[in-house]
Amino acid sequence: VSSHLEHDLDHLKQEVLAMGGQVEQSLDLACGALRQRDEQSARRAIELEGRIDRMQLEIDDACLKILALHQPVAGDLRFVTSAMKIVNDLERIGDIAVNIAERVLSLIPRKPLDEPLELDEMMRATGGMLRSALDAFVARDAGLARAVCLQDDAIDQLNRGHFEKLQERMKRDPDSVERAVGLLSISRSVERAADLATNIAEDVVFLVEALDIRHPGLELRA
Amino acid sequence: VSSHLEHDLDHLKQEVLAMGGQVEQSLDLACGALRQRDEQSARRAIELEGRIDRMQLEIDDACLKILALHQPVAGDLRFVTSAMKIVNDLERIGDIAVNIAERVLSLIPRKPLDEPLELDEMMRATGGMLRSALDAFVARDAGLARAVCLQDDAIDQLNRGHFEKLQERMKRDPDSVERAVGLLSISRSVERAADLATNIAEDVVFLVEALDIRHPGLELRA
Repeated sequence: VSSHLEHDLDHLKQEVLAMGGQVEQSLDLACGALRQRDEQSARRAIELEGRIDRMQLEIDDACLKILALHQPVAGDLRFVTSAMKIVNDLERIGDIAVNIAERVLSLIPRKPLDEPLELDEMMRATGGMLRSALDAFVARDAGLARAVCLQDDAIDQLNRGHFEKLQERMKRDPDSVERAVGLLSISRSVERAADLATNIAEDVVFLVEALDIRHPGLELRA
Repeated sequence: VSSHLEHDLDHLKQEVLAMGGQVEQSLDLACGALRQRDEQSARRAIELEGRIDRMQLEIDDACLKILALHQPVAGDLRFVTSAMKIVNDLERIGDIAVNIAERVLSLIPRKPLDEPLELDEMMRATGGMLRSALDAFVARDAGLARAVCLQDDAIDQLNRGHFEKLQERMKRDPDSVERAVGLLSISRSVERAADLATNIAEDVVFLVEALDIRHPGLELRA
C-alpha cells in the first residue's frame, strides 16, 4: 500500500467523521427542539443543511479521485465505496433532521398535545444508533455495527405504538388532528433515520467482513 | 479501453436496466392496486421484493469486481459509481412499493374514502419520472435527466394539496381517520419515490456531464 493512498484514506475517514458529527448535531438539535419546544434549536438544525450538503459533494469527489489515482483493491476499495454509501445515507439523515425541525416549528406555537412517550424514546435510541454506527466505522468494529442493526426492530415497534395512540386521539378529538398529523410525520421521519443508521452499520459490516448482510437470507460474500 | 471492460460495462448497464424494470413493475402494481382496489396486484408487488434485493446485491458485487479488475477512470469510473448509486435508489423505491402495497391491502376491505384526485396524479407522474430517469441512463441523455429533476416540485405541490384535503376530512369526519392516515402514508411514500427518481436523474447528469447538480447553488465539477 502506497503511503499516499494510506494518507488519502485516513483523510477520507476524518472527513466522513466530520460530516457524521454535523449530521448527529442536526438530528440532536431537531429532536431537542421538540422536547424543549425551542424554536432556536430547530432553526440551528435547519442551518446546518448547507454545510452537510457541501461535505457530501466534497467527500464524494474525494472518493472518485482516490479510485482514479490509486486504484485501490480489496479492503481499501471497500473502504472507499462504503464511504460513498455512508455519506449518501448521512446526507439523507441530514435532510430528515431538517424535515423534523420544520415540523417542530409548525407545532411550537400550538398547545402541546401531551405527546406519547414513544416518540422521545425513538429519538434517543435513533441518535444512539447513529453515534454507534459512526463509532463502528472509525473502529472498524463489525460487532458494534451488528448491534446497531439489531436495534432497528425496536424502533419500528415504538413507531407502531406511537402511531396507534395518535390515531385513537384523532378519532376522539378532531381538534387534535393537525398536531397529531405533525407528530406522526415526525415519528415516521425518526423511523427513517433509524433505517439509514442501520444501513450505515450494514456498510460497516461489509467493509470489515466483506459480507453483504443488507438482505436477511441473501447474505453475499465479496 | 479494453474490450473486457467494455463488455463488463455493457453487461452492467443491462443488469441495472433489468432491475429498474422490476422496480417499475412493482411500483406500477402497488399503485394500480389502490386504483383498482385489487388485492392480487398488491400481493404481486410485494412478491417482487426478493428478486429486486438479490439484483441489488449482485449488481453491487459486479461493480466492485469491475473497479478491482479494470480500474476504470473518467467516464467509465463515473459509470460504475453511478450504477452503484442508482441501484441503491432503485432498491429503496422497491421497498416503498412494498410499503404502498401493504397499506393498500389494509385499505381494500374498507369502504373507499373518495380519495382526492391528487394521489392518482402523483402516482402516474412518479411512474413517469422513474421511467424517464432509466431511459436517460440508457441513452446517456442529460437533457431528459434534467427534465425529470424539474418535475419533482410539482409532485411536492400535489402532495401538499392531498395532505390538506385529508386533514380537513379527518377533522370533520372522525370515522375517516384510519383510512385517511393510510392514504397520507401512501402519498408520502409516493413523494419519496419521486425524490429517489430525481436522485437517479441527478446521477445520470453527473455520469454524462461530470457535473454534480444534487444541491442547487453548490454545483461541483468532477
